[in-house]
Amino acid sequence: MLLREQVGTIPGLAVIQVGHHKVSDLYARSKQLACEEVGIASFLAYLPATASEGEVLELVSALNADKRVHGILVQLPMPPHIQLDRVLRAVSLDKDVDGLHPINLGRLVLRGLHPTFIPCTPLGIMEILRRSGVQIEKKHAVVIGCSNVVGLPTALLLQRQNATVTVVHEHTPNPAEATRKADIVVSATGVAQLVRGHWLKKGAVVLDVGTSAVEDAAADGGYRLIGDVCFEEAEIVASAITPVPGGVGPVTVAMVLSNTLQSALRFFGVVIDNSDNSFTTDSHLILR
Amino acid sequence: MLLREQVGTIPGLAVIQVGHHKVSDLYARSKQLACEEVGIASFLAYLPATASEGEVLELVSALNADKRVHGILVQLPMPPHIQLDRVLRAVSLDKDVDGLHPINLGRLVLRGLHPTFIPCTPLGIMEILRRSGVQIEKKHAVVIGCSNVVGLPTALLLQRQNATVTVVHEHTPNPAEATRKADIVVSATGVAQLVRGHWLKKGAVVLDVGTSAVEDAAADGGYRLIGDVCFEEAEIVASAITPVPGGVGPVTVAMVLSNTLQSALRFFGVVIDNSDNSFTTDSHLILR
Repeated sequence: MLLREQVGTIPGLAVIQVGHHKVSDLYARSKQLACEEVGIASFLAYLPATASEGEVLELVSALNADKRVHGILVQLPMPPHIQLDRVLRAVSLDKDVDGLHPINLGRLVLRGLHPTFIPCTPLGIMEILRRSGVQIEKKHAVVIGCSNVVGLPTALLLQRQNATVTVVHEHTPNPAEATRKADIVVSATGVAQLVRGHWLKKGAVVLDVGTSAVEDAAADGGYRLIGDVCFEEAEIVASAITPVPGGVGPVTVAMVLSNTLQSALRFFGVVIDNSDNSFTTDSHLILR
Repeated sequence: MLLREQVGTIPGLAVIQVGHHKVSDLYARSKQLACEEVGIASFLAYLPATASEGEVLELVSALNADKRVHGILVQLPMPPHIQLDRVLRAVSLDKDVDGLHPINLGRLVLRGLHPTFIPCTPLGIMEILRRSGVQIEKKHAVVIGCSNVVGLPTALLLQRQNATVTVVHEHTPNPAEATRKADIVVSATGVAQLVRGHWLKKGAVVLDVGTSAVEDAAADGGYRLIGDVCFEEAEIVASAITPVPGGVGPVTVAMVLSNTLQSALRFFGVVIDNSDNSFTTDSHLILR
């Protein structure tokens, strides 16, 4: 039976964006399109970059109370005059589909605890690894970049699955040398073409999260997206590699949908058989 | 002026212990003695190992409301029938002097955010490094053990100060090789004498957090405490090393006192000049 028929409504996702930002605009748009495709209602709540923290908090509070909304995403970066901690803490734990509420991140640190939701990009990375049959336990993983949204939660997730994890960042004296020891490399710096072929061990599995917009008069919209990894060099060395665009990005969007669906099902009190532990690819079959 | 005269009362620390455990008993006792020494009131709330989760939560709630108590420590491990998440979340954020409330741990993950309190052992480790003038930025640190209380928060703190951090654990295929790359080694496994001399790079700084009780008929109480690190071998290789007992342990206790004092001052609305960023050693001068 269709979910809509069963419960009389459909899942809803709200995206809060404050101010414009080329890559954020793109992400927000791709999430909306994806929602449309699988039958999730999407609400883009846009505030100008001059919005006050109070206005953002009021918006969050309204979305927390809105019964059509089962997931709330706060698009980062926020303008610097807004205290991120306050905004992230204001999101209802039950609607925190991006897993960035400090309580959910704290649960990610504490072994034995389970976040209500896990941040979507790290979750997507783990899903790619799982579906590709990449062994994580006992492997050495290097995460390049220690961002709140990707680097740090990814390191914690890989650690939870018993990889030995090193986080490499801008203060690492020789990042190439450190990365060359890794069986699994996750790069999330936003520095275009940072990771060259000689940074990689033969046979490494490479996940490229970085997305930089570079001007290109010949491209649609005047720019194209490139990753952290020099793909042409890396694909010769790596045993598996994700491209940019078209790699981690779309899977991240799929995880947003998956988390939103799961959140909605919890609100509806509907249980679906997810025993094969598969995620979103089949979810539109349920929703449509 | 003495704090007691200024505000008419003294700081108070409550320790919640559920069930007996040799090392926990020792820690709880040493915290009580330390409180006595500096003039902090201490309350040991002991429940038997058979106590229900509801009883523990009720106790936490009573201590949250108790005006004599400015810090609440939950002594780990808890018996397995008690859900740690619930207990840690029940502690008032303002009294979470062990920094284990998931919100505080989440803030430790999120760069740019600041926990109300930082877990005492990791805080003690950072304090030892700071006072010893050990450079952290740009250095490679290996944390052995990924416990909730020590390993993971220590890794996050070292990362915050721009070290490149690798977390080594029981699933790391060659922990000696991984550790030998480190400028700073923090071992917190509880496996006695795990870290041998050949695990260390010449000149490494070694912090030994592990504390195991081994039977020794000749010793006081029939047992003695030994660390994770084979001290005799390590001191030849290391440029600096903390012993067990007498190293990280007492500094951890000092951090408990420091956090409790800071918490009390916040409750009292008293501001002290802490511009030299020194911690507890001088605090009894203020308190007595």
